Amino acid sequence: MSSPQRSSRRSERSRRAILDAARELVVELGYAKVSIEAIATRAGVGKQTIYRWWPSKGAVVFEAVRALSENTDGELALPDTGDLEADLKLVLRATAAEFADPAFDALIRGLTTEVAHDPELAAAYAEHTARLEEAKRQRLRSGQRAGQLSPDADLDVALELLYAPLFHRWLLRTGPLTADYADTLVEAVLRAFPPPASVTAS
Amino acid sequence: MSSPQRSSRRSERSRRAILDAARELVVELGYAKVSIEAIATRAGVGKQTIYRWWPSKGAVVFEAVRALSENTDGELALPDTGDLEADLKLVLRATAAEFADPAFDALIRGLTTEVAHDPELAAAYAEHTARLEEAKRQRLRSGQRAGQLSPDADLDVALELLYAPLFHRWLLRTGPLTADYADTLVEAVLRAFPPPASVTAS
Repeated sequence: MSSPQRSSRRSERSRRAILDAARELVVELGYAKVSIEAIATRAGVGKQTIYRWWPSKGAVVFEAVRALSENTDGELALPDTGDLEADLKLVLRATAAEFADPAFDALIRGLTTEVAHDPELAAAYAEHTARLEEAKRQRLRSGQRAGQLSPDADLDVALELLYAPLFHRWLLRTGPLTADYADTLVEAVLRAFPPPASVTAS
Repeated sequence: MSSPQRSSRRSERSRRAILDAARELVVELGYAKVSIEAIATRAGVGKQTIYRWWPSKGAVVFEAVRALSENTDGELALPDTGDLEADLKLVLRATAAEFADPAFDALIRGLTTEVAHDPELAAAYAEHTARLEEAKRQRLRSGQRAGQLSPDADLDVALELLYAPLFHRWLLRTGPLTADYADTLVEAVLRAFPPPASVTAS
């Protein structure tokens, strides 16, 4: 007798196997050459299992990318240890490492091309991006409440100053994407939006 | 009798007419539909005049773009009134306005596509970009000497923080490219790399 719980665990295992297979295959073959059939074979499931959860190859690959930025509960949140500088460095170092990783590069370039042709996928991607941006703003707000960032800081500008230089180096290959570079950006942005002196002194 | 001086003035007039015609036509028709013949007709010169100075359509359009960032002596230099913040705001506002201008947008997108297919043009473009970057670093160095920017500032990082957010907004259309936004970026970057306190107080 298979309990609902065991069946749900099996589903979760299949889901992860499919997403891992999709990621691996895009990296090995390039997005264009990956088929739903190849993903199913690699994941050890039937094609129907994939089509039950996702309408297209683009949707599976998008989910594989999205899963990279979600925690185990499927929530989007940046680490919050109470130390804004340390948390931002952790996140920005991870972003720099992702951008520098050929596997991630292949995933994102494949997905970007697909998004250009698939309005439904484009909408899902835009929604995901908006959720990610909001998670980042939440972490900055928490830093403002803790007196580690100016309460007047324009959070969108602060996020652009953190992320746009990384994106620029990645897209145009104008410089190395290192942990040092991530740290330099975080430190510069925190200096640009300092908390009120009275708060830092306390 | 035509003096050498008058002939050189006439050459300069033809050169400007050709560059203006190239710019206008790319904006009106899109890069792909512009021909050397159409540029010659619009500029009121013979095709041979164009081919005497430039080997290809891409080279003419590149020159038209380059001319936008050179002063009347053909030199690349940022304004230097002695006030780094004011000068950077002037330059970054102009950059934001350029990016926001559909005419510039058409030129740059056309040129970018051409650069991808034409190694000679790509080399010229890379050289121009390097000269432009050096002119920007020069202005920041002059600001360091004037005690308006930290002598320890990494000038490449400072430039990325100034320009990458503008580029990002332009490329991905994620926000308005306004004078206010340019000012916000300049102010943030100057706060991120403040001069030593003793110098500001003097």
